[in-house]
Amino acid sequence: MVTRPAPVVAVRFDGGALRALDQTLLPWEERELVLDSAAAVAEAIKRLAIRGAPLIGVAAAYAVVVELQRDPTEAALDRARQVLREARPTAANLAYAVDRVHGAATGQNQLATAALEEAQAIEAEELEASDKMAAAGAELLSGARRLLTHCNTGALAAPGRGTALAVIAELAVRGTLSEVIATESRPLLQGTRLTAYELSRLAIAHQLIVDSAAAGLIASGAVDAVVVGCDRVAANGDVANKVGTYGLALAASAAAIPFVVAGPTSTIDEDCPSGDGISIEERDPDEISSVGGRRLAPPGTPCRNPAFDVTPAALVTALVTERGIAQPVTTDSLLALKQ
Amino acid sequence: MVTRPAPVVAVRFDGGALRALDQTLLPWEERELVLDSAAAVAEAIKRLAIRGAPLIGVAAAYAVVVELQRDPTEAALDRARQVLREARPTAANLAYAVDRVHGAATGQNQLATAALEEAQAIEAEELEASDKMAAAGAELLSGARRLLTHCNTGALAAPGRGTALAVIAELAVRGTLSEVIATESRPLLQGTRLTAYELSRLAIAHQLIVDSAAAGLIASGAVDAVVVGCDRVAANGDVANKVGTYGLALAASAAAIPFVVAGPTSTIDEDCPSGDGISIEERDPDEISSVGGRRLAPPGTPCRNPAFDVTPAALVTALVTERGIAQPVTTDSLLALKQ
Repeated sequence: MVTRPAPVVAVRFDGGALRALDQTLLPWEERELVLDSAAAVAEAIKRLAIRGAPLIGVAAAYAVVVELQRDPTEAALDRARQVLREARPTAANLAYAVDRVHGAATGQNQLATAALEEAQAIEAEELEASDKMAAAGAELLSGARRLLTHCNTGALAAPGRGTALAVIAELAVRGTLSEVIATESRPLLQGTRLTAYELSRLAIAHQLIVDSAAAGLIASGAVDAVVVGCDRVAANGDVANKVGTYGLALAASAAAIPFVVAGPTSTIDEDCPSGDGISIEERDPDEISSVGGRRLAPPGTPCRNPAFDVTPAALVTALVTERGIAQPVTTDSLLALKQ
Repeated sequence: MVTRPAPVVAVRFDGGALRALDQTLLPWEERELVLDSAAAVAEAIKRLAIRGAPLIGVAAAYAVVVELQRDPTEAALDRARQVLREARPTAANLAYAVDRVHGAATGQNQLATAALEEAQAIEAEELEASDKMAAAGAELLSGARRLLTHCNTGALAAPGRGTALAVIAELAVRGTLSEVIATESRPLLQGTRLTAYELSRLAIAHQLIVDSAAAGLIASGAVDAVVVGCDRVAANGDVANKVGTYGLALAASAAAIPFVVAGPTSTIDEDCPSGDGISIEERDPDEISSVGGRRLAPPGTPCRNPAFDVTPAALVTALVTERGIAQPVTTDSLLALKQ
């Protein structure tokens, strides 16, 4: 029997506080943060100590519970929702999870208890979703031996084994994977720091590249398929994900290899008709002008730092979700998954 | 009358040694290296203290002179050619310049004098070429107000004002340029360290981005044209340039904006039929696993570090040279320029 390596546990609720592995310190240090308020969790999400669309959803759900344990009032519930929703505006799961917990607790006698039950339900759903995405994605990509992935979409990004990296991990367990090419994912180097860390723990053969090397390697025939996660999927299938994703989709399309997106259906935002409606978070310019603590740009250099980009649905071969696969990715195929 | 800001002088021959601004230390420190042998120049080229296809051609030409002043023999001439040609295999100008100086000196009584005259001729040609490319490129892109460029192609990359950045500088002098978006150009961050430094000295408005943000910004309509340099152009017009160039060409094509390559005709390699024949230099993996002196990847992470990629001629709107513009870029239009 094939055994699965145990995934990293990125966040857990200890009954009183949310404990989270500080991802800004990985891979150098495995330090657990103890977060005892919604504001503390929001701050950890903002500075990417907790990151990955499904993971920040679960973290934010528990953050509402933590806040209600301190102050079990409807006012606290509303404040928690607001501070958490504003932490990262592009991530659909964050708003989705916070709204679910908020809705479940509103009007209840035991606000914290009601919130906790909903947060636990969300976490359980995400855990199950990770396994289902892994299985569905591995079926879809059973013939792909060399996969390229972007950013970090593993156990550090979503409960369980993650999204895109769960597909990769499942292919490794099934023995059909030969190699993963991981992009470093500037500016915050989630690929270098987190994906390389996870792939190493999972004993999956991998190579790290700079983001801009991906297109040329894809054109050279070194990659069988690209698989990435998603932060928000519009109703028409346009995908907002880590900056650089759109360029990978263009390269995959030019080389006629599959470009596969993996994410739970909670990432699909039916209220957002297309990618044009997705607000793209602009992050701190210092993320670009400094690397590894060292300032690299001349003083005063203006920087532009969009955290995401939008890949048109037409470039997405398939969307792998816990409810199955949308292929091609269209308004209709997404609606069918959500029903 | 409009005055031009004086460009940086990146290399100069002082009569005995080659003096070069150490580009690995920019923008923090302006330190001049004194290089008194072909091996020292080759080493400086290898570690990118001297870089940029036309600039390393001129530096290597003077390196032959420096070597012959130490040892004025045909054996020294041959050794110098070999050590210099091997310094960076993808750059066409390097081999071209070294072979020209070698050919001019071979069989002469005064080897060093003959070599010096040829090196000076190459430098003068490159200086004139930079001005001609600037003028031709500025005509071609007279309607483009927002340009995106990659890597560094200015006075630090070529004698005079450079190649692609010379076009940008000329558009700024003409007053039609509103902004330059510069990619950081991982792994060695020539955009962050060198292009931002040059644009700042030239007082040209600019913004720095991570490489993978370029495609999304181009798709969003933020860029009127992309202009880049080239390290080698195959006979059919395929362009080898800094890794990431191909991805920019795909994005420009998808957005239907011009993708313009600037480089002297010495960059065109008639002996190389297509991009398939261009050997792509793989550089030290440490350039990826470490940034700004800090190791970022987990210990032992395997890295793949191609320094260049190949953009098919069909994606290149025009090639701007000192002899005029090839548009479209085809075997015939390139042949016409070389004649």
